[in-house]
Amino acid sequence: MAGETELIERYFRDLGAHRDDVRLGIGDDAAITTVPPGRELVLTTDTLVEGVHFLPGSAAQSIGHRALAVNLSDIAAMAATPVWALLSLTLPAADERWLAAFAAGFGALAREQQVALVGGNLSRGPLAVTVQLAGLLAPGCAVRRSTAVAGDLLCVTGTVGDAAAALAMQLGQLTDNGSQTLRRRFEYPTPRVGLGMRLHGIASACIDLSDGVQADLARLAAASGQQAIIDVDVLPMSDALRAAAGDDAWKYALQGGEDYELGVAVSPENLAALKHVATVTGVNCTKVGSLQPGAGIELRRGGNVMQFSSPTFDHFGR
Amino acid sequence: MAGETELIERYFRDLGAHRDDVRLGIGDDAAITTVPPGRELVLTTDTLVEGVHFLPGSAAQSIGHRALAVNLSDIAAMAATPVWALLSLTLPAADERWLAAFAAGFGALAREQQVALVGGNLSRGPLAVTVQLAGLLAPGCAVRRSTAVAGDLLCVTGTVGDAAAALAMQLGQLTDNGSQTLRRRFEYPTPRVGLGMRLHGIASACIDLSDGVQADLARLAAASGQQAIIDVDVLPMSDALRAAAGDDAWKYALQGGEDYELGVAVSPENLAALKHVATVTGVNCTKVGSLQPGAGIELRRGGNVMQFSSPTFDHFGR
Repeated sequence: MAGETELIERYFRDLGAHRDDVRLGIGDDAAITTVPPGRELVLTTDTLVEGVHFLPGSAAQSIGHRALAVNLSDIAAMAATPVWALLSLTLPAADERWLAAFAAGFGALAREQQVALVGGNLSRGPLAVTVQLAGLLAPGCAVRRSTAVAGDLLCVTGTVGDAAAALAMQLGQLTDNGSQTLRRRFEYPTPRVGLGMRLHGIASACIDLSDGVQADLARLAAASGQQAIIDVDVLPMSDALRAAAGDDAWKYALQGGEDYELGVAVSPENLAALKHVATVTGVNCTKVGSLQPGAGIELRRGGNVMQFSSPTFDHFGR
Repeated sequence: MAGETELIERYFRDLGAHRDDVRLGIGDDAAITTVPPGRELVLTTDTLVEGVHFLPGSAAQSIGHRALAVNLSDIAAMAATPVWALLSLTLPAADERWLAAFAAGFGALAREQQVALVGGNLSRGPLAVTVQLAGLLAPGCAVRRSTAVAGDLLCVTGTVGDAAAALAMQLGQLTDNGSQTLRRRFEYPTPRVGLGMRLHGIASACIDLSDGVQADLARLAAASGQQAIIDVDVLPMSDALRAAAGDDAWKYALQGGEDYELGVAVSPENLAALKHVATVTGVNCTKVGSLQPGAGIELRRGGNVMQFSSPTFDHFGR
């Protein structure tokens, strides 16, 4: 069986985009890159663990794609441009077919998004993938989650709930109707990088919807010191979700995570500009609510109003 | 039980050094930092997995220290100055006592080395820690592993074999003589950051000895297109290692990993300068061999010569 160094050499060297700002890539104790003058650096990391973020037996290509996508979504939510990734992969055994498929999934998305893989680490252990992603940004042009104000409108990109419905099918919690659309939305999410990097000057605040509309818009509102009002009836849902989940579709749209859409706060006067950049980048953008003075989140559905003080998903909270 | 966001808030926000170049730390989708003009960025990542890199039941404080130390050693081996870390921690359950001890170990070393923790991720899963560390460097001042030439001398810092002997005691492979010195060398290694950042202009090449003298000096030699000659009889060994391992001490010194010392290639004319910066930074530095035209590694011990074409440790190779 090939060793760690050989495996990294074979599957990960030169994976992703070739970038002139990479001075030294995989193969030494660390990578060397150059940050252009007048650019800030944006740094994020996210981990996918087998049995937690994906089911045992999931397609390696999808895991490679998602491991990068979840980080791209964080960079997009800051309105930055992704540039360099580091990859830490822990595997029970050196299955080369698995590695090739994983690298194909990671590499295709990296090339598409002009991200270079500059460092890697492979070790034996339970299957888990940690990616760190760096982005660049003009100084002061980040869009944070904490800078929204009362009166801002809340929008979400794309459609929500698809990934959660696909996962529920895999878990046997929802009848599997064979929808490839939903499955693809879960396995190959599309981070909104192009839209994200155009949000400066338009959005008041932005957050990656990795944990779902309700949890993440509540976080954005809390970070901004406001209350979020969400009109559940207008959440953007795909036909595939409606067909699969019927009357429960709204629950997936409201609470399902893993879509990697963006939640954007925008002033009423900037809504048209947001819609414009969404159109330009080929992404739907739907107004789903607003912020008002207060705390927590208020959900409106079919004439009913539900209030929650702090409804957030997380790994250890429930 | 507290949730992920609260746990990160409680244990990881403001952990490590406070640095003026951190514009936005933990708490948003990503961190924002500024790279000073005229500095290159150095990036590395390393993972510790329970049962692979440390034994189940290991002290959380030690795991926190080591997770950062292994990355500091990579940055030191490039002759860079460490600045910002990201942490991905996967835990079976949110044990707050464990988290507090882990954070104490990580935080103490981070403050000592002026590293800010700027991003974090906490998820449920088998115990594993991935740290990404960024360093800064004047352009062209990196010390790589591939730039040594024939005739260079090979040196190692500190003493080698201590961590491996401590681990062998924990595994019952070596009689446990209760040595706190060895145990501490394994649990709280001292990355050679101060020495590393002074190597530019002195060293021809450098490598982090994470996998042991034999494997890593062979890697340095291979990357530089040379053969490494190692005089096993002069490997720097601690009294504690000699006392614990007796006649086998040299095996630990030669092949044991996890010491996080540096392997340095230096021209004969620069040896005095290397010894000088080692003295200034309070680190022993011992000449253990040299490079000559060829490939692989030659070990000399007690008048015997052993040659290997490619003796490298790695996670999947054996």
